[in-house]
Amino acid sequence: MSAQFDQVSVVKKSNVYFDGKCVSHNIIFADGSKKSVGVIFPSTLKFNTGAPEIMEVVSGVCKVRLAGEEEWKTYAAGDQFSIVGDSSFDIETVETLDYVCSFG
Amino acid sequence: MSAQFDQVSVVKKSNVYFDGKCVSHNIIFADGSKKSVGVIFPSTLKFNTGAPEIMEVVSGVCKVRLAGEEEWKTYAAGDQFSIVGDSSFDIETVETLDYVCSFG
Repeated sequence: MSAQFDQVSVVKKSNVYFDGKCVSHNIIFADGSKKSVGVIFPSTLKFNTGAPEIMEVVSGVCKVRLAGEEEWKTYAAGDQFSIVGDSSFDIETVETLDYVCSFG
Repeated sequence: MSAQFDQVSVVKKSNVYFDGKCVSHNIIFADGSKKSVGVIFPSTLKFNTGAPEIMEVVSGVCKVRLAGEEEWKTYAAGDQFSIVGDSSFDIETVETLDYVCSFG
């Protein structure tokens, strides 16, 4: 996994979720596809998806439980997990998590 | 002020300062110059500069006092202020502040 995205556009205004527990900036690629680079601070949060998402862990560790599943799975730097559209997932972090989220 | 930067590189891993009160992502331009897009949550913080910096307010409002000055000045969306190198500034925010910081 490279450390950066090249030749992209970055939206200056951030997205803030859960009172600042999650902060991200949107990135737009030349082909129009979108990702966000973000941070989740130690917490347990439930995210809802509209479009399907792929979450890649850049640094840190998280436990994730997808909607309808019992099991929590652990993901660390370099790992990724997918969430279907119109669904949700629970995520638990005990340290700062850096992530990239891909949409669509 | 445009809403985004185009044709740039974005570093995936964030910079976290002051226990998450400030979060930013680094951006690198084709000419090698660097900026960061960031957020400051409600707080009063002191930032130290190495290189000179220009801070542009993207959204929100802040009060700033440069090192050696008595007066606090207010900056809102579209405003910017400059800080010399090897100096510091105090910044007070009462709502979420989105900013762009330019270095060099």
